[in-house]
Amino acid sequence: MRVFGVDCGTEFTGYGVVEVDEAARTPRLRYLCAGAVRLAKKDHTAVRLAQIYAELTALIELWRPETVAIEEVFFSANAKSALKLGQVRGVALLAAANCGVEIAEYAPLKIKNAVVGHGLAAKEQVQFMVARLLELERAPEPADAADALAIAICHIHHAQTAEAITAGTVRR
Amino acid sequence: MRVFGVDCGTEFTGYGVVEVDEAARTPRLRYLCAGAVRLAKKDHTAVRLAQIYAELTALIELWRPETVAIEEVFFSANAKSALKLGQVRGVALLAAANCGVEIAEYAPLKIKNAVVGHGLAAKEQVQFMVARLLELERAPEPADAADALAIAICHIHHAQTAEAITAGTVRR
Repeated sequence: MRVFGVDCGTEFTGYGVVEVDEAARTPRLRYLCAGAVRLAKKDHTAVRLAQIYAELTALIELWRPETVAIEEVFFSANAKSALKLGQVRGVALLAAANCGVEIAEYAPLKIKNAVVGHGLAAKEQVQFMVARLLELERAPEPADAADALAIAICHIHHAQTAEAITAGTVRR
Repeated sequence: MRVFGVDCGTEFTGYGVVEVDEAARTPRLRYLCAGAVRLAKKDHTAVRLAQIYAELTALIELWRPETVAIEEVFFSANAKSALKLGQVRGVALLAAANCGVEIAEYAPLKIKNAVVGHGLAAKEQVQFMVARLLELERAPEPADAADALAIAICHIHHAQTAEAITAGTVRR
């Protein structure tokens, strides 16, 4: 299973690709790549959105994941920043849909829980655990790239649990 | 000059195309088309966004406007609906950018002012005036289509004023 995580932001949009060999006796997470699309603030919104769309589309086509995992909306901000974030998120969802890839959404709490073990973990704890789970010397930068990897790991975690449950049901 | 107006919404996204022959002695607005992309609530967000993107792209390529005019963000709603609206708006801006068309943004107040004559006009007044300015028997439906035409008219109005000012400066 290969998962493409996306962490949407109005300045940086992080991405990270994680793979797991489900057939292996002890499935291990494998880090494939991570990075972030940085948007020049001086550009017009539409130019920035076109850049995110083009880069995400190229990356999804390159890595051919089974799933694009994306954070569910988080409402800490005001309406103005929610709208700006929504514009980026809309374009990211569109890139996944137009590549014909399955989309999975996870709430921030679920993501932290899957990576750190509890939903109230600090940003640094998430980054530390992402590096540890993927056997990296340090967490990828910027933090948005590490966050995107965390979202991908969360999906693998949930997919595996779902599979184990299905396998259990079948065996009954 | 041909302008493609877009009125973004989470259920209906209206569009309308208006043309004006600037070379004519008495330039008249000409209605070309109007309608709305209706989104099925049951579909996943990404599917709906892909539908808006595909339909707007096809319409922009069909009508080949010089400009896509779009409403600036309006903050009456809460963060949740702002994010949803942002997703639609992001995809609409992307469609225009990927078609290589100029984008113009207008605040709701400016749009009402251009069509009705004052910024606090009611929705029905805007619809009535759109029909009158475009010499239609009645305003197109749904209301989102009429709103999109109003945005297009607003851009023509502002572009003409800008042109008149430039012409005046040159003549001095």
